[in-house]
Formats: sequence, structure tokens, C-alpha cells
Amino acid sequence: MSIPVTTEPTYSDHSTIDGQDGIVRRLSVGEHHFETGGYLPEVELAYETFGTLNAEGSNAVLVLHALTGDAHVATGHAAQPGWWADFVGPGLTVDTDKYFVLSVNMLGGCNGSTGPSSHNAQGHPYGSSFPFTTIRDAVHVEAKLADALGIDVFHAVMGGSMGGARALEWAVQYPDRVRNLVVMAATGQSTAEQIAFAQVQIEAIRQDPYFAQGDYYANAVGPDAGLGIARKLAHITYRSEAELEHRFGRTAQGQEQPLGSATWPRGRYQVESYLDHQAGKLVNRFDANSYVVLTEALMSHDIARGFDSFEAALARLAEVNVVIAAVRSDRLYFPEQSERLAAALPVPKPVYYIDSPIGHDGFLTDAKQLHGVLSHLVFEQEP
Amino acid sequence: MSIPVTTEPTYSDHSTIDGQDGIVRRLSVGEHHFETGGYLPEVELAYETFGTLNAEGSNAVLVLHALTGDAHVATGHAAQPGWWADFVGPGLTVDTDKYFVLSVNMLGGCNGSTGPSSHNAQGHPYGSSFPFTTIRDAVHVEAKLADALGIDVFHAVMGGSMGGARALEWAVQYPDRVRNLVVMAATGQSTAEQIAFAQVQIEAIRQDPYFAQGDYYANAVGPDAGLGIARKLAHITYRSEAELEHRFGRTAQGQEQPLGSATWPRGRYQVESYLDHQAGKLVNRFDANSYVVLTEALMSHDIARGFDSFEAALARLAEVNVVIAAVRSDRLYFPEQSERLAAALPVPKPVYYIDSPIGHDGFLTDAKQLHGVLSHLVFEQEP
Repeated sequence: MSIPVTTEPTYSDHSTIDGQDGIVRRLSVGEHHFETGGYLPEVELAYETFGTLNAEGSNAVLVLHALTGDAHVATGHAAQPGWWADFVGPGLTVDTDKYFVLSVNMLGGCNGSTGPSSHNAQGHPYGSSFPFTTIRDAVHVEAKLADALGIDVFHAVMGGSMGGARALEWAVQYPDRVRNLVVMAATGQSTAEQIAFAQVQIEAIRQDPYFAQGDYYANAVGPDAGLGIARKLAHITYRSEAELEHRFGRTAQGQEQPLGSATWPRGRYQVESYLDHQAGKLVNRFDANSYVVLTEALMSHDIARGFDSFEAALARLAEVNVVIAAVRSDRLYFPEQSERLAAALPVPKPVYYIDSPIGHDGFLTDAKQLHGVLSHLVFEQEP
Repeated sequence: MSIPVTTEPTYSDHSTIDGQDGIVRRLSVGEHHFETGGYLPEVELAYETFGTLNAEGSNAVLVLHALTGDAHVATGHAAQPGWWADFVGPGLTVDTDKYFVLSVNMLGGCNGSTGPSSHNAQGHPYGSSFPFTTIRDAVHVEAKLADALGIDVFHAVMGGSMGGARALEWAVQYPDRVRNLVVMAATGQSTAEQIAFAQVQIEAIRQDPYFAQGDYYANAVGPDAGLGIARKLAHITYRSEAELEHRFGRTAQGQEQPLGSATWPRGRYQVESYLDHQAGKLVNRFDANSYVVLTEALMSHDIARGFDSFEAALARLAEVNVVIAAVRSDRLYFPEQSERLAAALPVPKPVYYIDSPIGHDGFLTDAKQLHGVLSHLVFEQEP
């Protein structure tokens, strides 16, 4: 596992970052008292910006990433394409010629923000001592980052999957700071099944002997196998049965023999090789502890926590223009769940659909299908 | 892990087993040359019978179990209820007052039939040396068992899930020995997604350091953790999202705190405790090597192997009365897959539905919904 470490200088003044699209920066937002009792004396957040904040500070758009995503939402000046490269950028749906896009690596992550692999004051990785983190914790430290960057109100806060959970929690916690809210392929509360799939993934990591209760950073080998298993399961849930069948069926991988024999070990089906590839990619770019922390944060996701009811939490969005979107073939965040969320809003809204056959990941691959809807509902007005 | 070992005497003559319903017996069917090249000098099969084979030998029904099932399909004289206790028995849909039911533990299993935990000629468990096994291998040794029991033709061969795969392969391999075929919640070829879920499960077991490449029987600890993870994932796929949500939602287990803290570890949601319970139950009754062997057998499932086409394989069923059934809410063996199978039969058939909200496991819990259909189509005629 190799964790990307960003060593860009940090900036505390947004006026210095114009024209530096897609460069990772870090900013300290000071101490953080976690929702469930943890404490860190200093939290740094890694973020990228795209476009220019206008004089009124009225054109800021906060884009929040999913479980293993990062702040690199658009391509900018970087060689590496952004994860929403066809959706956020100059002339695109989220037009960085007009809007100032801010994207933040989530607290607990491993792409620049303070997380389990970050060093504590004694110079050691937090590891198992990293505090239990909720989506709400992430939102609160992101609000401090917005303060530091001089953004009082976001024209829009948006995201898909865990990014959608973060966006929704943002609007519930800070309704006065969010004019438009776009929640894609996400719910207001993680469901029993989402919790169940998450538990299996976490357990695969924790049961890996190289996990060492989370304190593996000084060891030669980390819990790559466990993280790989977690990713494979997750990846299946991110795609649709139909897509897997269409792409792979029962085809063998290359010259491998998926039927074992007395004289050779079993080879792989193509779909197995595909999952191996997905696992390997993640293991090379992501930290297992961060995977656990963020997955547990997503399990904890419940905008109603501390409110009298789910509806009472949503009632705070009365003045927010809310757009709910779902992927028609999603079998992790079912369209029905988005429908229920949309129906529970203070002003019930329709759900807008991404018609992709590939499942949950359609929020990544086909977000541009929402171009018309978002141009009309969110980005039509001059910011 | 404790593997049930049956020490009943074996019988080679069915006339001696009348009235001994639900008692596990073992019979040697001699050597077996496996489809992909393996060889065992002797295979024993564990089986149970219910009812009495008539003089013409025309009332035999073969019932085949799913992945972790066994031969104990009905209750009989045993204290332990059969796994289809409300579907197979005196006066039930498969009426053991009229039919002679034979149920066989699959080759490679751990409930009495020869499998990885069985001892080889040198008195050691096969472990990693157990041959790669296909559904077709299982069918061929079961045919030898039928020979030994004096059953030339089965009035019906039936099963659900992997039992459905076995039943279908039975009819394709031995169409002259099957009058009626009942395939529930199963396909003719394992799909990409079924293979994908299976790979994750197998890998969770193989990556468990206590798996010891399959040769763990002499060790104090076996791969319980890996087998537990496999079972949890499998169990989620056996149920429906709606059922998990209805039963568990986001409720905490007892007094546990699903949100972790600086001062306590994270407790569990109810759905996590439920999965822990399912894992624990399986670990106590099933052998990890058998789980791998049978799962790989199911991955290999493809009735078309060796035929010119899927349709060519099914063409062998021209004289077999085929009944295809599916569970409406099944998300592991989708109803659409059963529809495609039924449409590809020599004489296309409708699919009969079990209307259960719980998912794939509905073939176990609600098989009796097929009482009317099967009474009419399969069991109306005097055997």
C-alpha cells in the first residue's frame, strides 16, 4: 500500500489560489472535538479549488467525494484527470469558468487530510488511536475550512454516494450556508443492508493478521489482502448484475482454466480477474485504516441523529433548493430510497434519474446526464 | 468448527431401509474419476430416505440440497426438523406416504459424504488434496447411488439453489432417468455476479492464516474467521434488502453503542449481530474446505459444458416434464434468469413464483407456496 502524500504549501487566503486549479493544498482548521467524544488538537484538510471566487463570494460550489475519492474532482492543471472530469470543469455542468469549486478530502481519509495514517504530535501515525469519525464530524471541519477561505454561503453543495451523504448532512447542519443542494445516489440514513455490506468489509480488514489492530504502519506488510477483499465486495455492489454479465459472463481470463484439476490449480474467470484488478488498484492507493474509519462513518450516517425525527431534520432544508438524483440500476442505494428521501422533504420533490445500466457507479460515469436538470434548477441563475 | 460425523451402518439394499425415515446412512459407490482429472479410489455418499419404494420402483423422488444443506430434508424419526420440513413429509407437497424420497449429501460436503475432511487410505484428511469437484461429478456419483438402491428412474428430481443446479444437471446427464424435474431459484449456468460473490467468499477463507492452504485439520484452530466472513456475505445475498430493513433498520443491538467513542469501542447494529449469529452457526456445523469445494463446484456450474450450446444441452430434456420456479424477491438468482431458462427449454414453460419478500431463501421458507402447482403438474398422477 502506498499512500499519496501531498506536500503542497498551505494557503489561508483564497485570493492567493486563483488560477491554481487542481493543485492539492492543505489548511489547518485547528482542534476538533469529535461528535462521539474524540479529540484532535489539530486537523488539516486537503482541498483543491477550480475557478475564481468572485468579489461577492457568491459563486462557491462545494463538491464532496465518495468513500475512496479525493479532492481531485476536476482535472485543472494536473495531469491526472479529475474523478468528475466530464462534469466539473470549464464549460461543463459545474462550470468552473463561472463557479469557484472547492473539493475537500474527508477527515479520516488518506489523501492529504488528517487521518489514521497522519502523524500525531509525537510523530507517530495515529493508527488505532484515530477517533471514531462521523459524517457530521467531516461536515463541521469542512465548515471551518469554508470560514478560512472566506466562503460564508455556498451557491451549491453537492456529491454522490458518501459525497451525497456529506452534502445532505452539510445542508442539515448549515442550512443558512447552502443555497442549492444536490444529493446523488445517497440516503439520509444508512440502511440495514448498507450496514451489513459494510460490516463484512470492515471485518475482512480487521481479520487480516497484518492489520495488527490498526497499528501496522511500521511493519513491512499491511493488511492488503483484507483491504482487497473489502474492495471486491464493495465493487460488486457498485455495479449491476446486468453489467457484470454483459461484460464478463462465464468467460475464462486469458488462457487460465477456471476449472481446477488434479494437476493444476484453478484459474480465474474474467470477472475474478476484474475484481483482482480493482482490489489491486485500491490497495495501491488507499490506506486500510482510512477505509475502516470512512466506512464506519458511513455506517453512522443518520441526518436525524439528535433531532426528534427524520422529518424534523429535513425541515431545516425549508429554504434550500434541493435536487435529489438516483441511478436507475443502483442496487446499493436503491432508487426507492431516493424517492422516499425526496418525498420527505419540506417541499416534496421529484427524483431525477441517471439512466445507466452499470449500477451505483453511474453517479460517477454518467453524472453528465443531469446537465439539463442542473443547468435549469441549480446553475441557471447568474451566481 | 465441529463437523457432524455420522456413523450409521451402510445398506446396499433398499428393502432394508423401509420405515427408517430420516436416518443418515452411508453407501460406497466405489471409485470416481472426476470430470477435470481427479481420482478417488472410493467415494461414500451419505443419504436419507423417507417413505417406501414401491414394488415397481416407480415412486422415487430425489431431493437435492443447497450449498450448506445436507441429506436431512424431512424430519422423519429424527428429533431435528428437516430443512424442508413443511414441504417434504407425510401428507405434504412431496408426500412421503406416497413417494419414496431420497436425499443425498453432495460429494465434497461435510455431512457424511466423502469430502475434504474425510480420511484417505492413509488415514489422513484429504484437505488440500481433495479433487476439484463439479456439479456434474456430484450427479454421476449420485447416479451410482441410485443404481445401488435399485432406482432406475426417478418420478421426480428436484432442488433449490445449488440443489436446483444439481437437479437440472441430473436431468441433462440422465434424461432417461428423470420423469419430472423441478428447478427452484437456480440457473443453468452460474453467472458473472454469482461467480464474483463466490470468489470473494472463497478468498476470505483462503486468506485466513488458519486455513493453512486447506490442511488445518490437525491444528487447534481452523479458518473460522474466514468462513464466518464468507457466510455473512452469502447470507446477505440470500435475503432481500427490504427484509433486512424491515427486521433491523438502524437499531442498535441491545445496549451496544454502534457509534464508537474515545472511551469505548464501537458496538453493533442489530443487523451486524444477526450476521455474527449466522456466521457462528455455520462455523459450528460446516467445514471450510467443503465450503470452498462446493462453492467452486457451483461456480463451475454450466449444463452446456461439452455440448454445442446451452440449447443443445436443454434439448436433452425433450421428454422430461420440467417445472421452473423462482422467488420473486431473489437478488442472487434473479427471476429474469429463471425466465430465460424456462424460455430456452425444448418446450418453453412459464415460471412459477414463490411470492416471498425475503429473497433467495424463500425457496427454503416458502416452498409450500408451490403446493398447488406441483400437485397439479408433478404429483397428480399416481406414481
